[in-house]
Amino acid sequence: MQPKEDLITSWFAAQSTLDPAQFPIGIGDDMAEIQLAKDVSILITTDMLMDGTHFDLSTCTLEQAGYKAMASSLSDCAAMATIPLSAVAAISLPVGFGEREIKELHAGRVRAGALFDCEVIGGDITKWRDPAGKLAICYTILSKPSGHHPPVRRNGARPGDIICVTGSLGGSLAGKHLDFIPRVKEAFEITRRATINAMMDITDGLSTDLNRICTQSKVGAILQADMIPYSAAAQDSGDPIRAALHDGEDFELLFTLTGSEFKNLDGYPDIAITPVGVITDTPGIQIKLPDGTTQKLEPKGYDHL
Amino acid sequence: MQPKEDLITSWFAAQSTLDPAQFPIGIGDDMAEIQLAKDVSILITTDMLMDGTHFDLSTCTLEQAGYKAMASSLSDCAAMATIPLSAVAAISLPVGFGEREIKELHAGRVRAGALFDCEVIGGDITKWRDPAGKLAICYTILSKPSGHHPPVRRNGARPGDIICVTGSLGGSLAGKHLDFIPRVKEAFEITRRATINAMMDITDGLSTDLNRICTQSKVGAILQADMIPYSAAAQDSGDPIRAALHDGEDFELLFTLTGSEFKNLDGYPDIAITPVGVITDTPGIQIKLPDGTTQKLEPKGYDHL
Repeated sequence: MQPKEDLITSWFAAQSTLDPAQFPIGIGDDMAEIQLAKDVSILITTDMLMDGTHFDLSTCTLEQAGYKAMASSLSDCAAMATIPLSAVAAISLPVGFGEREIKELHAGRVRAGALFDCEVIGGDITKWRDPAGKLAICYTILSKPSGHHPPVRRNGARPGDIICVTGSLGGSLAGKHLDFIPRVKEAFEITRRATINAMMDITDGLSTDLNRICTQSKVGAILQADMIPYSAAAQDSGDPIRAALHDGEDFELLFTLTGSEFKNLDGYPDIAITPVGVITDTPGIQIKLPDGTTQKLEPKGYDHL
Repeated sequence: MQPKEDLITSWFAAQSTLDPAQFPIGIGDDMAEIQLAKDVSILITTDMLMDGTHFDLSTCTLEQAGYKAMASSLSDCAAMATIPLSAVAAISLPVGFGEREIKELHAGRVRAGALFDCEVIGGDITKWRDPAGKLAICYTILSKPSGHHPPVRRNGARPGDIICVTGSLGGSLAGKHLDFIPRVKEAFEITRRATINAMMDITDGLSTDLNRICTQSKVGAILQADMIPYSAAAQDSGDPIRAALHDGEDFELLFTLTGSEFKNLDGYPDIAITPVGVITDTPGIQIKLPDGTTQKLEPKGYDHL
């Protein structure tokens, strides 16, 4: 079953009357693209992060919340292998928050933005009147194509493609979700070495996000359970494969490419790249378990709705 | 005294290390501008509107909230006389909201966007986990320069300039704030007829917003109380001049230009343009009252913080 979030995204995409010549990439990818002149385009992503949903101010600092909000949007730039340009920030402040809290949030976003020379160029800060109103942070980031590879979409996976992930997956809520490094540089380097057919960042869990690539590409996939690189935190959870498949907030790259392009990534030095399965022409995702049996894999990651 | 919001905006602007060649307009105007190629630039604005602060779902519909959020950002395009291109939407949904509520919000933003052919090209919707979490809507709009006039900033007012406003002011909360038409077309036409030195939209009240133009332009102003065009709703308030000066949410244009340029607006057909005062070289804003006396005018409009 498709997550509710994906059904509503499909509905929005179906409403769209955008001219593809002016908007080469619209609703449904990690970023949308606007063509401004013959060789000039810009991409945009927006994300709303809320206290109690994406971070918890009872257990993390405002600096960490600011960092995570900025890093999450930068991860969307990585998801399409584009170069971050600048950001704008809109923030809803709880009653009682003032200059000190604003500056702490700012420090976090500066720390994330400085990784990729992406500065905030404008914004809007407003306070809730309702005393129950909680912090919400919305960063919108603009990026540009890398020049060496078109922005990588979700809809380009082809049967026979190898499915790869960077780093390790699962258990991010134990800590990584607050201090991950968006894979902007890795996406840049990977797309310099190889042609990538489909890519996104893993935010809602491998099962849910691979399902998005498969649905948009009108293909299926077989994952190999014992190939999936799980994190130490996933190991600690007691069911590392389950954690790696469904936990989400990994902010790693998930991409597909042909076998011959995959060879071009041989010896890639910056981060582990692990093949975890193949794209098939049969819809749906199957997973081959260590005991040799194959099961249907439902998208059981995080559904925002 | 400067509003707290303006003090923190100045602090952010002072932190900025943006290269003006790449970012001709940064923090402190209605939109920021990014230069992408020799003759290609894009502008961006982001606004967060919250239930209980900018609209009240106990007295307005979701469609109206969606309209207002989109129209508020379109008004920023008008404020600089730029052409809206497209928008992205980020929304935090209260617990219990689902597809029906999302589609109602969407209908409102479509109604506003259709006025200027500005469509939503992407977004992010997330639900609060906290049952007290209220609706927050963040629309970010991209625009482009008109081609016939550079984007109009706040910092260009010069002593001797005539200060003008469009339409009538005050009492917007009686209804107009939910169904105003952003002055995009008027800003386009005004800047086609005349060179405008400084402009913004009136969102926080004439006293506060004129103070912003004066502060950024390092000038002062004298307003003529009996020239200020107040609305019927301001009249109903019992103190129409006070309402017109401080109420805010008028979403009318406030601009300054030389006397000879002002003549070019003679007979402008689309909306009333009223001269309300002059720019001076003495800092601060004075207001000349109907009894002939002159008083200092403090910015007493809406302070977001």
